[in-house]
Amino acid sequence: MDIATLIGFLGAIGMIIGAMISAGGLGPFIDVPSILIVFGGAFFAVMYTAPMGVFLGSFGAMAKAFMPKAPKMDLLIETMVELSNIARKDGMMALEGKDVPDKFLGKGLQMLIDGADEQKMAKAMNMEIDAMKARHAGNQGVIKAWVDIAPAMGMIGTLIGLVQMLGNMADPKAIGPAMAVALLTTLYGAFIANVLFGPMNTKLEGYTADEVVYREMVIEGLRGIAKGESGRNVQDNMVAILPPKAQAKLLEAA
Amino acid sequence: MDIATLIGFLGAIGMIIGAMISAGGLGPFIDVPSILIVFGGAFFAVMYTAPMGVFLGSFGAMAKAFMPKAPKMDLLIETMVELSNIARKDGMMALEGKDVPDKFLGKGLQMLIDGADEQKMAKAMNMEIDAMKARHAGNQGVIKAWVDIAPAMGMIGTLIGLVQMLGNMADPKAIGPAMAVALLTTLYGAFIANVLFGPMNTKLEGYTADEVVYREMVIEGLRGIAKGESGRNVQDNMVAILPPKAQAKLLEAA
Amino acid sequence: MDIATLIGFLGAIGMIIGAMISAGGLGPFIDVPSILIVFGGAFFAVMYTAPMGVFLGSFGAMAKAFMPKAPKMDLLIETMVELSNIARKDGMMALEGKDVPDKFLGKGLQMLIDGADEQKMAKAMNMEIDAMKARHAGNQGVIKAWVDIAPAMGMIGTLIGLVQMLGNMADPKAIGPAMAVALLTTLYGAFIANVLFGPMNTKLEGYTADEVVYREMVIEGLRGIAKGESGRNVQDNMVAILPPKAQAKLLEAA
Amino acid sequence: MDIATLIGFLGAIGMIIGAMISAGGLGPFIDVPSILIVFGGAFFAVMYTAPMGVFLGSFGAMAKAFMPKAPKMDLLIETMVELSNIARKDGMMALEGKDVPDKFLGKGLQMLIDGADEQKMAKAMNMEIDAMKARHAGNQGVIKAWVDIAPAMGMIGTLIGLVQMLGNMADPKAIGPAMAVALLTTLYGAFIANVLFGPMNTKLEGYTADEVVYREMVIEGLRGIAKGESGRNVQDNMVAILPPKAQAKLLEAA
Amino acid sequence: MDIATLIGFLGAIGMIIGAMISAGGLGPFIDVPSILIVFGGAFFAVMYTAPMGVFLGSFGAMAKAFMPKAPKMDLLIETMVELSNIARKDGMMALEGKDVPDKFLGKGLQMLIDGADEQKMAKAMNMEIDAMKARHAGNQGVIKAWVDIAPAMGMIGTLIGLVQMLGNMADPKAIGPAMAVALLTTLYGAFIANVLFGPMNTKLEGYTADEVVYREMVIEGLRGIAKGESGRNVQDNMVAILPPKAQAKLLEAA
Repeated sequence: MDIATLIGFLGAIGMIIGAMISAGGLGPFIDVPSILIVFGGAFFAVMYTAPMGVFLGSFGAMAKAFMPKAPKMDLLIETMVELSNIARKDGMMALEGKDVPDKFLGKGLQMLIDGADEQKMAKAMNMEIDAMKARHAGNQGVIKAWVDIAPAMGMIGTLIGLVQMLGNMADPKAIGPAMAVALLTTLYGAFIANVLFGPMNTKLEGYTADEVVYREMVIEGLRGIAKGESGRNVQDNMVAILPPKAQAKLLEAA
Repeated sequence: MDIATLIGFLGAIGMIIGAMISAGGLGPFIDVPSILIVFGGAFFAVMYTAPMGVFLGSFGAMAKAFMPKAPKMDLLIETMVELSNIARKDGMMALEGKDVPDKFLGKGLQMLIDGADEQKMAKAMNMEIDAMKARHAGNQGVIKAWVDIAPAMGMIGTLIGLVQMLGNMADPKAIGPAMAVALLTTLYGAFIANVLFGPMNTKLEGYTADEVVYREMVIEGLRGIAKGESGRNVQDNMVAILPPKAQAKLLEAA
Repeated sequence: MDIATLIGFLGAIGMIIGAMISAGGLGPFIDVPSILIVFGGAFFAVMYTAPMGVFLGSFGAMAKAFMPKAPKMDLLIETMVELSNIARKDGMMALEGKDVPDKFLGKGLQMLIDGADEQKMAKAMNMEIDAMKARHAGNQGVIKAWVDIAPAMGMIGTLIGLVQMLGNMADPKAIGPAMAVALLTTLYGAFIANVLFGPMNTKLEGYTADEVVYREMVIEGLRGIAKGESGRNVQDNMVAILPPKAQAKLLEAA
Repeated sequence: MDIATLIGFLGAIGMIIGAMISAGGLGPFIDVPSILIVFGGAFFAVMYTAPMGVFLGSFGAMAKAFMPKAPKMDLLIETMVELSNIARKDGMMALEGKDVPDKFLGKGLQMLIDGADEQKMAKAMNMEIDAMKARHAGNQGVIKAWVDIAPAMGMIGTLIGLVQMLGNMADPKAIGPAMAVALLTTLYGAFIANVLFGPMNTKLEGYTADEVVYREMVIEGLRGIAKGESGRNVQDNMVAILPPKAQAKLLEAA
Repeated sequence: MDIATLIGFLGAIGMIIGAMISAGGLGPFIDVPSILIVFGGAFFAVMYTAPMGVFLGSFGAMAKAFMPKAPKMDLLIETMVELSNIARKDGMMALEGKDVPDKFLGKGLQMLIDGADEQKMAKAMNMEIDAMKARHAGNQGVIKAWVDIAPAMGMIGTLIGLVQMLGNMADPKAIGPAMAVALLTTLYGAFIANVLFGPMNTKLEGYTADEVVYREMVIEGLRGIAKGESGRNVQDNMVAILPPKAQAKLLEAA
């Protein structure tokens, strides 16, 4: 559970709902046809931007903004040191069947056990990182499409409302409320783009960058194991990839 | 048939038409001179941005958003494994006249049969990929021009309508309807840019990226055949280019 | 004569003039002071962005959007094959005084005749391509400046009109027409940016890219001549740079 | 204390407050619900964009815009010359325990004392610079998020105000003040983006660039020490990284 | 004196002042508090974006848009040919004390006289070019800050004016003039961004590019002198960096 996402998300929505209530209640801010054109229209137009699989997959990516699988650097380093010591003493084969904290590491380890050399393992693992980046970029592309398209749908909705209103100005008293409803779609569009999906996109890009650092550390560690380096050296090489504070914390713990 | 394009496209248009109908019918939203200036004006201004051949070719590219020629990875890998096994047993010449699932593969294969080495074949095939990217970029450039120019035409139409209306304010009752008509061009421009062509452009860029991955797999496979590798090795090298899920699916099937 | 530029340009202007006429005649859309501030103001502000020579040179570049010097690929390849056959039979000196279809090729050929080797010729010719790109970028920079500055001048003109109008609201009947005139400058600015110069800029960038491909083919051909390759080989290398369709057309003709 | 930040910041705010006072006092420009939605809404939405640690860390980065730790080039060069002379005369071990003006230099020096060669030291130190850039980019990303999100929150607030106002137009006298309040959130959003955080972001990016130059000078100096160069040479290599004016000033002082 | 800057600058301002006068005199367009908030506010906010030294230095850079130190290519080439002939006949030492047209060339020449080899001289001189680019980018960054911040200050001023006006609508006759004043700040912001500083920034970027070409020619020439090439060769190498027209002009003159 990422506490900043949750507090930030609920807090921002709370502020906006609070402003609506203090402006006289939520009632005037809810209009079903307006919701349909902005949420529904954007939903379909976003679907149009991507293959069906990527579109459906993006909903899982959205959940990750709230429930990220945080990479555990310290557990990783601990495991790596242990594995490298085993490999040094008893050879690669002794690593067979060892428990590892994530699939990515497991795959690379299996390659080494199966006899791949450092070069081949690193190339395959780096290709996997590239594939992950491409996959995440696809999902984040759908989220970016929401950010781009929702305000446009809001504007289209407002224009539809204005055209309808301007064609029926017989009753001056109806003008105000009609215009209020017309503006609602612009409000929804701004809300979807700037509160729901804009920050989520930034957050997910950050997670992807963190995951890439984690995986590069895995590869660095596996390289050390392949070269038969000592546990101490493997740890040093992996730690060097981390930012200073994380380095200090890990070294203290060591 | 790409189901996401079709549902997305029809759904988004449906939402907008639904909003118009619920606002009192389609009638007030249709104005022939407004349609002429936005669709017609953008049509000609977009034509002005590109050579005639590229402009005309872009309509074919648009159709591809709905009817993509989906690259079939599994058929490709199957074919490649078969071809590499034949080449290994009976030599390159035995590949002459074999059925292949697409022209691009056919061209590379012919080069190998005609005696080209791995280097020369790969260089020529990569140049073809570059040419494809340039060709697609040209077509997508025309679609991007629609996205840029249509809202501008909408704004020009609205300004023309406003100037005309402001010069004739003798009858106050005519102001509302005149302004409604003036706003229609802005509405059309937003519709063209954000519903018709914006998502289409994103989709086509995605297809181009997929096609590039497919063609890179073809080259990887042909390299293997040229080097006389076993069918198993050729399959491994080609699979490694795919994202994890597609890898898993192919390996299960194998 | 580039037919797409001409039809596109006249068609877009025709659509806009048609919309004005159908809105009640061109009269209300012409206002000399408004024309002066937008066209004149943008003219001077654009001049301010560039050295005088580049500013004046940009008008010639604009003409090229309508009258491009289309590169003739087939004539080029034919010439190159002929030249390479002569060079192979009778030596470089025999190329002296041969007719060539453009100056760029002529310069490279003269270098080879004067004894330059492949390396030196290619370096000098590539520097010439870079210089051409820089020169075109300078001219296109001026056209881009029109696209950026004209709408700003339109907005400044509208603000001037609004300030003047708002200060003199004694006669309510004058408000409408005054505001109509104020909006004209915004209309002019949008017209200059989106109809006159925006598409022209895209078109010229396309031409520059085509010219670069042509010149790269010239260099590829001259490299072949310098290396004493056969006419057939020279043709193959040059054709490989072209997109598939153009390749097919040339090969059929051969 | 960075005098330009302080004068600029206070001056810009002073100009705006002055304009408010000259428009009739600060009273009409302060509205607590409006402040809550813009400042509060942006606060939470910005928190949503980043992990909690980065979000909290960004406030420290903001303070640095006012209280930068200015890199002291002259002190650095003086120290480096001294250290290189000691290392040359008495060997690396003699550098143990020497006072150094900053931690970064201290770390590199310790590596050399501990026996690392030039290559290894430079690689580790460059990785530290990259980590610093990534850390600063994270903090500045939060500041950029304020610049992006605050105007959007201002617009959302204004739309909420307008919808509420348009639904209650019974009393024409209330329209003006209600609209005034609605516009306040747009004003706050523009203020946060363009006065508070926009310039701060530019400033911090400049500081990061300066810090990178400083650290590259440290590495250049340590390389010289590792290679056993004379103090004079070390100084020359470090000075060459500086801009001309700073070079002249340092050489005069020398 | 750069004639295009002067004519463009005065012409654009003249067009705008002319439009104001033809709209009824300059009077309604001048409002001291509005000038204070836009010019003053932007002045301080821009100061906030940069270190004090860079901010103050940017005013000198602005003067250069009007009074550029035009690089004299022909004088440079003439000097270089002369110097290379002397160096070839009498050795590097004979170059001591020769008059050179600019400091940059002087510095490189002194390095050669002091015994630096081609490599070392070129590295140091290229670092100086990089430093110049960074310095110019700093100054141009300040000018870009004006372009970004001035319209924002104009918008803030207009919002302040609107809020004040909307809160005091008792006298309907005062509304028009109050709104006219409110719009003035937007007008000032657009003027500062699009007439004063926008074109200036483009111009200065162009000058920097020209200066870089000039300095690369100096380095090319000095390389030739270091390698003991003939004056003729030095000239050829330097000329090749120029665009075709300038080449032709120089070769004719030769």
